[in-house]
Amino acid sequence: MPAVDVAGEFETIERLLRPLAHPDYARKLADDVAVLPSRPGFDLVLTKDAIVEGVHFLPDDPLDTVAQKLMRTNLSDLAAKGAEAFGYLLACQWSERCGWPEREAFAAGLAVDQKAFGVRLLGGDTAVTPGPASFSATLLGWVPKGGAPARSGARPGDAVYVTGTIGDGWLGLQAAQGRLSLDPERVAALAEHYRRPVPRLEFGQAVRGLVGAMMDVSDGLVADACHIARASGVGLELDLEVTPLSAAAHAWFDNRIDAEAAMEKLVTGGDDYELLLTASEREEAALRREADRLRLRLTRIGRVVSGAGVEARYLGKSLRIDHGGWTHGG
Amino acid sequence: MPAVDVAGEFETIERLLRPLAHPDYARKLADDVAVLPSRPGFDLVLTKDAIVEGVHFLPDDPLDTVAQKLMRTNLSDLAAKGAEAFGYLLACQWSERCGWPEREAFAAGLAVDQKAFGVRLLGGDTAVTPGPASFSATLLGWVPKGGAPARSGARPGDAVYVTGTIGDGWLGLQAAQGRLSLDPERVAALAEHYRRPVPRLEFGQAVRGLVGAMMDVSDGLVADACHIARASGVGLELDLEVTPLSAAAHAWFDNRIDAEAAMEKLVTGGDDYELLLTASEREEAALRREADRLRLRLTRIGRVVSGAGVEARYLGKSLRIDHGGWTHGG
Repeated sequence: MPAVDVAGEFETIERLLRPLAHPDYARKLADDVAVLPSRPGFDLVLTKDAIVEGVHFLPDDPLDTVAQKLMRTNLSDLAAKGAEAFGYLLACQWSERCGWPEREAFAAGLAVDQKAFGVRLLGGDTAVTPGPASFSATLLGWVPKGGAPARSGARPGDAVYVTGTIGDGWLGLQAAQGRLSLDPERVAALAEHYRRPVPRLEFGQAVRGLVGAMMDVSDGLVADACHIARASGVGLELDLEVTPLSAAAHAWFDNRIDAEAAMEKLVTGGDDYELLLTASEREEAALRREADRLRLRLTRIGRVVSGAGVEARYLGKSLRIDHGGWTHGG
Repeated sequence: MPAVDVAGEFETIERLLRPLAHPDYARKLADDVAVLPSRPGFDLVLTKDAIVEGVHFLPDDPLDTVAQKLMRTNLSDLAAKGAEAFGYLLACQWSERCGWPEREAFAAGLAVDQKAFGVRLLGGDTAVTPGPASFSATLLGWVPKGGAPARSGARPGDAVYVTGTIGDGWLGLQAAQGRLSLDPERVAALAEHYRRPVPRLEFGQAVRGLVGAMMDVSDGLVADACHIARASGVGLELDLEVTPLSAAAHAWFDNRIDAEAAMEKLVTGGDDYELLLTASEREEAALRREADRLRLRLTRIGRVVSGAGVEARYLGKSLRIDHGGWTHGG
């Protein structure tokens, strides 16, 4: 089929994307491919995620933050493998609302994050779609040979930790949609977290040799704990009383009548992009040293046991978790 | 935002995608990433293209052929770099019409092409979109260190060649849309070419050391010749009288009243996925040996000159080519 928007495609690459290209590996975006030399002693870590307007971002989200969300959610997957990010390929499917100002904003968002996270554009393609905009990125990082932690490394007796705070992703979505009645500064901070999460790359690299299993919290704390339990063939017990909350999340939470329902929202909502990890107790001091050095909160939220699935304790109740959330009662 | 279709996502991965996973590098699709060991002495070639319903494929195209078109258009980019393909990452954005039967067909198409081309699934993601379906793939291949030809390698004096036949991509689109009045067998063959082009991987690998510039014909023969001219800082002269046509394309062409307009359609329509290459005359015998060995047509269609841009000769006229097509007159 003849490409739609051929001039636009050419100019988009020329004006907006070429300045972002990796100086060594991208062939000036003129060759349909990136060519990457081998790096002996290192494994290449690859991850690929797409974001779709109306599903993963809101139709009125500014395009610079959309680009940054795409970049950061993918970087978060690299962080969970302890990888040092260096490049990405990008497929843009612009909707009709994406004229030059929107494309320029998108490229500006990429430029900011390229600098912030040390990555450069390697290749990809750009096209126009009659539907909602969507963008897909493949992120690449290096990790020393054999050094990438898996989800399957949790062992009974390990402690379970999470970085940062939980629930700000879900609250941020509510904030971005104008559904939160908190003071405006907190609403803005939460919406910002939803639009521009912070991937824990430095912490991931610092602790990759200390952890059993590690992954990022994207589906929600409990769902992601289930992923680790399943992949590792173990059970996880979580103490939700100690779930780390931000000041904004506390302000929201403290006004709920049904604490259990409120906590469920926070730990199942997802989009947190913190790291969830397990480690032997003897690594605790080392983990905390790295967290302190990076001024990152690290909370011990549970332990790994023999068995299967996730069991969460909250307000004296034991809650069985399944994939989508928890079963009330118990 | 809570993911749409979570159960579907999980089951799609479990039932349809996991059986396609690479046994060594995909971590059973359980880890959000692929981890690829270094291969000293080789460069990694990466390419990424997306296809969108209503833009790159038709809403009623069977999903197995959509999967195969996605795979093959990306493999064609690897072929042009002489790479040996081994794996891919995939982002699926299913539309509402994509229920289980359609997803199963899509996976079946992938399975067929995995076998045909020696590639395995490395990772990716799957989501549901409120708009038209779209799919994006990142294909990976190996090429001996420094061995990937570029678009920028054409030198004055080189001859210009193309594999296979030109115009079947554009005619195939017309055929798939029911716009061609040819006998049904030819219509079916052209639609098949549009839906399932054949990437020239073996030929690309065989000749990578013989060529100056090489790329695949996706935008159209003349537009892609322009890409080589620009990237190499040279001019290309094409003799369109010798444009290789399939029997079906001949049958269509011979019934046109305006031969020049008809030829323009064939050489600007795109979607051919043949290889366009330049090489020194002294390599001609070696190129033909490889083409003969693979039973692949190879046509010398022009030459590289000093200067810029592409000039095409047809029916005694000289036609200036610009990016979108040619300028009539001259």
